Amino acid sequence: MKVNGARLRADLESLAQIGRNKDGGIDRTAFSAEDAAARAWYKQRCDDTGLELRCDGLGNMVAGTADSWDRPAIWSGSHVDTVPDGGPLDGALGSVAALECVRRLAEEGQQLTHPVQSVVFSDEEGNYSHLFGSYGMVHGYDEGRLASMTGRAGDALTDVLQRFPWRSGGPDNRHDVSRVRQFVELHIEQGPIMEQRSIPIGVVTSIVGLGGGEIVFSGRADHAGTTPMTMRRDPARAAGAFLTRLWAIAASAGDDAVATCGRIAFSPGGSNVVPEEATLLLDFRSPHGDQVEALGEALSRAAQECAADHDVECTVRLDQPVSPVGLDEHVRDTIRSAAGSQGLPTIDIPSGAGHDSQNMARIAPTGMIFVPSHEGRSHSRFEHTDPDLLENGANVLLETLISLAS
Amino acid sequence: MKVNGARLRADLESLAQIGRNKDGGIDRTAFSAEDAAARAWYKQRCDDTGLELRCDGLGNMVAGTADSWDRPAIWSGSHVDTVPDGGPLDGALGSVAALECVRRLAEEGQQLTHPVQSVVFSDEEGNYSHLFGSYGMVHGYDEGRLASMTGRAGDALTDVLQRFPWRSGGPDNRHDVSRVRQFVELHIEQGPIMEQRSIPIGVVTSIVGLGGGEIVFSGRADHAGTTPMTMRRDPARAAGAFLTRLWAIAASAGDDAVATCGRIAFSPGGSNVVPEEATLLLDFRSPHGDQVEALGEALSRAAQECAADHDVECTVRLDQPVSPVGLDEHVRDTIRSAAGSQGLPTIDIPSGAGHDSQNMARIAPTGMIFVPSHEGRSHSRFEHTDPDLLENGANVLLETLISLAS
Repeated sequence: MKVNGARLRADLESLAQIGRNKDGGIDRTAFSAEDAAARAWYKQRCDDTGLELRCDGLGNMVAGTADSWDRPAIWSGSHVDTVPDGGPLDGALGSVAALECVRRLAEEGQQLTHPVQSVVFSDEEGNYSHLFGSYGMVHGYDEGRLASMTGRAGDALTDVLQRFPWRSGGPDNRHDVSRVRQFVELHIEQGPIMEQRSIPIGVVTSIVGLGGGEIVFSGRADHAGTTPMTMRRDPARAAGAFLTRLWAIAASAGDDAVATCGRIAFSPGGSNVVPEEATLLLDFRSPHGDQVEALGEALSRAAQECAADHDVECTVRLDQPVSPVGLDEHVRDTIRSAAGSQGLPTIDIPSGAGHDSQNMARIAPTGMIFVPSHEGRSHSRFEHTDPDLLENGANVLLETLISLAS
Repeated sequence: MKVNGARLRADLESLAQIGRNKDGGIDRTAFSAEDAAARAWYKQRCDDTGLELRCDGLGNMVAGTADSWDRPAIWSGSHVDTVPDGGPLDGALGSVAALECVRRLAEEGQQLTHPVQSVVFSDEEGNYSHLFGSYGMVHGYDEGRLASMTGRAGDALTDVLQRFPWRSGGPDNRHDVSRVRQFVELHIEQGPIMEQRSIPIGVVTSIVGLGGGEIVFSGRADHAGTTPMTMRRDPARAAGAFLTRLWAIAASAGDDAVATCGRIAFSPGGSNVVPEEATLLLDFRSPHGDQVEALGEALSRAAQECAADHDVECTVRLDQPVSPVGLDEHVRDTIRSAAGSQGLPTIDIPSGAGHDSQNMARIAPTGMIFVPSHEGRSHSRFEHTDPDLLENGANVLLETLISLAS
């Protein structure tokens, strides 16, 4: 059995229209109107195939045939939200391919030991909280933690969720994950290695450890014209010094460690006002668990030093780091066999990006399949993979799911 | 004749309620709903005293008695807009005190050779363009320049003006400034010098030269987890390096030069995306004309160097610099005499801040009166001057206006 390649392509193209901006990027951040439109688009496809779609209280959606709900199941899926100005494949590929696999199995009336269901996780990209939906599906959230989550405009997640149509009940209404036998996610590599080596299928060995947080440098707002430079307590100066140190700090944690500041703001934000506060968002990663914590400590220490050097205050709030996760050997073997039977070479590869799979791996044997990314570009409008490579990945996913479900 | 001190205080307190935020600062940026409310408040006080209020097409307002419109007049005033999270006195003092002087003259039925009128200029703080109203009043704007002006949310000034109730006709409907004999503006110092020396009245000698502009560092958006640090073209790094250099660049232009970045943004702005662009707003000043240009050149050069050091592109767009302006000797003498007759010591002092007076000085002999600022704080909610010092300033303004009008 193979996926319907033409339909897979058409679905990816159609989904990519939702949230497309004038520059060609995709603005489909979690819980936005565009995210809601993508969910409606997904629901329509479920309806067309007679699949039932169920939401939990966090907006995670699961699709399956009517007889698939009360039995241990194989799950596959990803997310349909994007970063601001994101690309057409990150999350979308794994969501659309999983749906295609479930559709093909339904169309063929294939009788397997276990049903296969497709999943869409909420807010993988962290518009409010990174890997929000899958974390909540696996661990749940207490009210205080949910209440503390805000978007980049300061909007409270709880208000946004309340208004979001693609959820069912309150945040404590959860899918029953105890019946998930295995989970498999198809994704683009988002790095350059597979393209450089011309290998079509990546068998993901582990998912990077991830830390994040916020640094606020606080000084004193003053008039930009009348306050001599020597009398200022300007947090912009400390923020600048801190930004220049990110590279050395990452390098000190190893070649495979990264540290990024993707968002910054000065407040109050007047062009003629010395800022009172500079707020920086941090993202740092390493495939080695102890290095994630060490990176967080080094970044905190550097921030405090920059603040002290420039006579401003500094508060650092680091998220609980996510440890690196090794993926399941048996699922990895199954992926390798599926690729082999289709004549597709594979490479064992770690994932530098976080994925919902790292949360699913806590409750079920989990595997990930990578397809190459052109020039390694991702989280941008230049994200691209040749359609043939996408179809290869979907076919390996389908065969893997059939093997696991048999 | 003296101003009504109780009314002056009550008016300042009443105006300070308009746009007051939860932290005690004032959000009354130009052409906002709060700015419109402040105009309505001002109009009500004109109505109460039988003063007529006239708007031009840019939102500049002039108030005077019915018989004051067709004769050469003495003008006094300032602005009612604030920076985001601004204070209760910057602009408000000069606007309220001028209105108080015109009211007192009307109440006393004082017959002077020339009428005195009070003025409120639009968008002094540059929500759309620095000294917007007074520049337009003096020089006018061509359509292209107006069309290019946008607010911090990207909103077009022309759209905003169209909806703003406190203007009359299109942008080319201008007050007749040929009949302005002299202009005098009362303002807080916004610096620490007068308080430190315990001198109640400042006679402003000149207004600082001002430059501004925008620097955009452009690199490449990439995934923050999968792009090795060595493969990035991250504009945040160049922006950080540039921010750390502002102090040395200002110092190289002299002790009295300043340079500020009050606003910054990374785009696309995802916490897990290496930024594609970093945009910085600049403000730089010097009391010496040639240094304003030299500062702009040094800042441009530094930006290009930072971009080259970190393998990103850089575009610098500098506004036309505003030259320093010397204020009128005769008006300054008149202010000194008025202060002297009230037993108030004076100090000759340059203004480090830009003011509408620098535009008015192009078309009429112009003077400025400063009162002290507590701790030199301004453009912040901590802006404060003792009420007695405010009243001193208003009385010196009144006597100055009477002398000039006699």
